[in-house]
Amino acid sequence: MVIVIQCKDQVGLVAAITGVLAKAQINIVSMREHVDTVDNRFFVRIVAEGNSSNAVYLQQQFQAVLPEDADIKVNPIPEKKIAVFVTKEYHCLSDILIRNHFKTLGATVQCVIGNHATLQNICERFDIPFHLVSHEQKEKTDFENELVNIISRYTADYLVLAKFMRILSPGFIKKFAGRIINIHHSFLPAFIGANPYKQAFERGVKLIGATAHFVTDDLDEGPIIAQQIIPVNHSFTAPDMVKAGKEIETAVLAKALHLVLNDKVFVYRNKTVVFE
Amino acid sequence: MVIVIQCKDQVGLVAAITGVLAKAQINIVSMREHVDTVDNRFFVRIVAEGNSSNAVYLQQQFQAVLPEDADIKVNPIPEKKIAVFVTKEYHCLSDILIRNHFKTLGATVQCVIGNHATLQNICERFDIPFHLVSHEQKEKTDFENELVNIISRYTADYLVLAKFMRILSPGFIKKFAGRIINIHHSFLPAFIGANPYKQAFERGVKLIGATAHFVTDDLDEGPIIAQQIIPVNHSFTAPDMVKAGKEIETAVLAKALHLVLNDKVFVYRNKTVVFE
Amino acid sequence: MVIVIQCKDQVGLVAAITGVLAKAQINIVSMREHVDTVDNRFFVRIVAEGNSSNAVYLQQQFQAVLPEDADIKVNPIPEKKIAVFVTKEYHCLSDILIRNHFKTLGATVQCVIGNHATLQNICERFDIPFHLVSHEQKEKTDFENELVNIISRYTADYLVLAKFMRILSPGFIKKFAGRIINIHHSFLPAFIGANPYKQAFERGVKLIGATAHFVTDDLDEGPIIAQQIIPVNHSFTAPDMVKAGKEIETAVLAKALHLVLNDKVFVYRNKTVVFE
Amino acid sequence: MVIVIQCKDQVGLVAAITGVLAKAQINIVSMREHVDTVDNRFFVRIVAEGNSSNAVYLQQQFQAVLPEDADIKVNPIPEKKIAVFVTKEYHCLSDILIRNHFKTLGATVQCVIGNHATLQNICERFDIPFHLVSHEQKEKTDFENELVNIISRYTADYLVLAKFMRILSPGFIKKFAGRIINIHHSFLPAFIGANPYKQAFERGVKLIGATAHFVTDDLDEGPIIAQQIIPVNHSFTAPDMVKAGKEIETAVLAKALHLVLNDKVFVYRNKTVVFE
Repeated sequence: MVIVIQCKDQVGLVAAITGVLAKAQINIVSMREHVDTVDNRFFVRIVAEGNSSNAVYLQQQFQAVLPEDADIKVNPIPEKKIAVFVTKEYHCLSDILIRNHFKTLGATVQCVIGNHATLQNICERFDIPFHLVSHEQKEKTDFENELVNIISRYTADYLVLAKFMRILSPGFIKKFAGRIINIHHSFLPAFIGANPYKQAFERGVKLIGATAHFVTDDLDEGPIIAQQIIPVNHSFTAPDMVKAGKEIETAVLAKALHLVLNDKVFVYRNKTVVFE
Repeated sequence: MVIVIQCKDQVGLVAAITGVLAKAQINIVSMREHVDTVDNRFFVRIVAEGNSSNAVYLQQQFQAVLPEDADIKVNPIPEKKIAVFVTKEYHCLSDILIRNHFKTLGATVQCVIGNHATLQNICERFDIPFHLVSHEQKEKTDFENELVNIISRYTADYLVLAKFMRILSPGFIKKFAGRIINIHHSFLPAFIGANPYKQAFERGVKLIGATAHFVTDDLDEGPIIAQQIIPVNHSFTAPDMVKAGKEIETAVLAKALHLVLNDKVFVYRNKTVVFE
Repeated sequence: MVIVIQCKDQVGLVAAITGVLAKAQINIVSMREHVDTVDNRFFVRIVAEGNSSNAVYLQQQFQAVLPEDADIKVNPIPEKKIAVFVTKEYHCLSDILIRNHFKTLGATVQCVIGNHATLQNICERFDIPFHLVSHEQKEKTDFENELVNIISRYTADYLVLAKFMRILSPGFIKKFAGRIINIHHSFLPAFIGANPYKQAFERGVKLIGATAHFVTDDLDEGPIIAQQIIPVNHSFTAPDMVKAGKEIETAVLAKALHLVLNDKVFVYRNKTVVFE
Repeated sequence: MVIVIQCKDQVGLVAAITGVLAKAQINIVSMREHVDTVDNRFFVRIVAEGNSSNAVYLQQQFQAVLPEDADIKVNPIPEKKIAVFVTKEYHCLSDILIRNHFKTLGATVQCVIGNHATLQNICERFDIPFHLVSHEQKEKTDFENELVNIISRYTADYLVLAKFMRILSPGFIKKFAGRIINIHHSFLPAFIGANPYKQAFERGVKLIGATAHFVTDDLDEGPIIAQQIIPVNHSFTAPDMVKAGKEIETAVLAKALHLVLNDKVFVYRNKTVVFE
C-alpha cells in the first residue's frame, strides 16, 4: 500500500499520520519525508504492509487529522494509463512500447498520437492504436482541437511527449495541467529551445544531457523530474551528439516515467520532490 | 537536532517516536525510515528543529515507548574525534588533513599513526601529532600493543585506515569493534586481497573501483559504506591504474567519513543502511 | 573507409602504413594507435576519406610493408550479420530488435534462437525467424548440435548471447572462436557464476554492474569489451537489484555491440583494445 | 618523448610525421590524431620511446615536411610552472598545494596571489609565496597592474584561477592569452555568471556541474577543457549545493590541469581537442 501526502507544514504531522496507521495496525515498511522550510510545505511517501481494502477509511482518518489543504492519496491510481505523443524519432517510443508490451512500464499505453506517420508501423506491431494528426496546413488551434478530440476518447492519466516536436499552446497545456511529461534533449537550463545539440557542438561542451520535466506554459521551463548526462569530446560531430543524446533521452524519460507512475514525484511551485 | 534509532520492527514505531516529538513541540524537517523485512529490523534518522538541550529528556521518552533492544541516539557525539592510520601513500591522509584544517571534516583529527615515517612531515605542517610505530623486526602482537598504547592516550571515536598497509589481527579489531573504517583499493568483492590493480590490469577490466567499509575479522569483508568506480582502458598500465585509483580512493573515503561522521550510517549483520 | 591492423610491434609501422595511404592520396580523418609494450603488439584503427573501391589494392600494399603476422582489415565486413541467443528475459533482445528494425544496430539480425519459447512472439512481431531449441531431456552435445545445425543455415558473423542462460561447452565455443559475445549480469570479476544479484544483495554492495565480453573456455573469463555500474542501496531487495541490473545489462550489451560491429575492438590474449 | 602538432590539414601529414620518426629509429608507443573536417585542422599527439636529446633535430625535420603554419612541440616545456589566483575558498588551492608538495601535479607552483588574506596561512604551511593584492578601494586597472607586477617576478607558464572571484579585464587576459585556466562553478553554458548554485536551486535541477576552461574575453565563454556533474535533489538547500559543488570543482580543475600540464589539450577557435 502506498500513501502520498502533501500539505502545509506544522508540528506533529508525522505523528498524526503514523498514528492513524498504528491504530489501524498497519506496519510501515519505508517512509520518506521532506519539509521545504523556505516554502513551509510538507511531503511524505509511505509504503506499508496492510489491507488496501480500507483505503477509503484511511483517507477519511487522514483528512480528520491533517490541515485542510492536504492533498492525500491512498493507493493513488494503481493502474495508470498514458497517451504518447511522437513525431518521427523512434527511440523513446520504442522503449515505452517494449516496456508496455512486457508489462514493466507501470502503466498501460492507450494510444500513440503522431504528427507524422513515421511511427505508425511500430505501433501496429505492438497492437497499439496510432492516430495521425498532421499539423500541416492548419491553424495551431485546429491542430490542438484534433489532439483533444482523440485524447477525449481515452482515459489517459498522463500525456507523454516522447520526442514530440510541436510546441503546445498554453491553452492546451492548461487543459492537462500537471499531466504532461516531456523529454527535452539537453541538460536544462543549458541550450533552451531548438537544436540544442548544434548549440552544444558549437560551444564545444564535454558533456551532453537530457531532461524530463512536466510541461508548463513556459517552453522548457516546467518542474524537472530527472536529468542525466554522458561525456562527449572533440571527435563528436553534431550528428554524433544527436545519436549519443538519444541513448540518454531514452534512459531519462524511462526513469522519469518510472518515478511518476510509481507516485514518487511531488510537484509544487516550479519544482519537484522526488523520493527515489 | 539529529535522532537515530535502530531496533527490531513492530507496528506503531514511527507513531510512537514522532508522538514523542509532537508532544515536545519539535518539528521534523526530514525523516528517513527503513525496515529490513527479511531481518525484521527498523531504522530511522530524523532531523528536527528544536532545542537540543532536552536531549536527555527525549532519550528517556523514546526508551519508554520503544522495544528494549532499541539503540537510541539523540544528538549522537556532536564533536567526533578520529585517529588516522597510514603507511606511505599521501592522498587519503592529505585530504583528511585539509578538511580537518578548514573544519569541514565533521570531526577532529587527534593524531596520525604511521608504520613508516614518510608522512610525518605533512602532519607536522598541519600541527597534527604523528606517531611512528614501525612493524619491522617485531611480533605482530607487540606492534599492535604499541598501537593500542598510543590510541589509549587519545579519545578517538573512530580509527580511520587511510591506506594503512598492515593487516590487523582479530584481537585488535575486536577492541575497536564497529569503530574501524578502511579504504580498500578495489570494487569489492572483486580483487580481494593484495595488489588489486595488478589483478585488474591482468584481467583487462574497463572500470576500477574503491570501497570504504567497516573492518571486521575477515579481510576486506566488513560492511560496505560507500563504493565508486572510474573508467579505465587498454592504454592504462598497472601504475596508471594505481594512479587513477588514488583519486577515487580519496573521494570514496571522504564520502564514507562524511556519512559516518554525520550519523547517516547504521550497521547490522554484515550490511549498512545509509541515509544519504 | 575504415582500416584496422594488428601485428607485432616494430619501428616505422605507422610511417609504413600512412605512407601507403599518402601515396594513394587518401586523407586520414582520425587515427587511434596503441602499442602494448609488455606484449610488443601494435594496434591501429584509421578512418579515412577515400574511394573504398581500392580496398584490395590497399590490402596488398599494406601486406608488402608490414610484418608477416599482420592482421589487416580494409573496410572489414561492412554489413555484419548476427544471430541472437536468448532464454526468457526480454530486455536485451528487445533493444537489439528495435535497433535492428530501425537500422541503427550496425548489423542485421538473421535469427533468434531460444531454449524457451517465451520470446518467440516478440521476434515474430519484428519478422525475425525464431528457433526454439529446448535443452530439456537431452544431452548437452545433442542440444549444441541442434544449435550448430540452425546456425549453419545462416551466415552470422557474431553470435550474441543476450541473456542466454545455458553454459556452452568448450567444443561449441571453439567452433565460433572470437565470435561469441555475452552479457554477464555482474561487474566481473566480482560475483562470477550464478545468481550474482543474490550474491550482491547478501554482500550489501553499493554498486551493481554488468559486463559484456567475448566468450572463451573459462566461464565468465573472456576478454572484456565494456562494463558499467549503477548505484544501489539498502532499500533494494534482491529482485530490485535484478530489475535495476537489467537496465545496465541492456545498455552495456548495446554499447559492446556498437563497438564490435564498428570494428573498434581488437582482441589479444585475454584482453581487448577498444578505440572508443 | 611527447610530440604535439597542430596545423592545417592535408593528405600525407601522418606519413610525413611518422616518416621522420622512423628515419630516426624512434618507436611510437601511442598516437592520437584528429582532423576537424569542418575547419580543416589537423591535430596529433605522439608518445614515443627514444632519446629526447635530439628534440631540436626532430623539430627541424618536422618543420621541413609540414605546412608553414604548423605549431610543433617536441617535448613541450617538461617542467611547467604555474601561478595560482585565489580569493577565500580553500578547496581548489589546497588540492593543488598537496599535489605540488608531493610532486604529482605535473608542474611547480611558483606563487599564490590572493585578493584576500584568507589563504595566506595554508600557503605558508607549504612554503609557497603568497601575495596579497587587495582589489578594494582602487581602480581595476591599478589592481591588475599590481597583479602583473607580481606575475612578472615569476616565470609561470599558466595562471590558474582557483576560485578567484574577480572578473579580469580583456586587457589583462590578452597579456596572458591562452595561458589562463579558470574553474567555473556550473555546468556551462547553464547558469552563466554569478551565483550559479542559487540559480540551480531556484530552477530545481537534479544535477549540478563544474567547468574548467581557458579564459577569453567573454565571461565564462572560453574553450572548455573538462566538465563534470553530480546528482542533487530536493533535499539540497542552496548552501548544500555549494558544498557538493566544491567537491566537483576540485576534481574538474585537477583533471583539467592534468590534461593541460601533460600537453593533452589543443586549443583552436573556441574549442579544445583533448586526447585523454
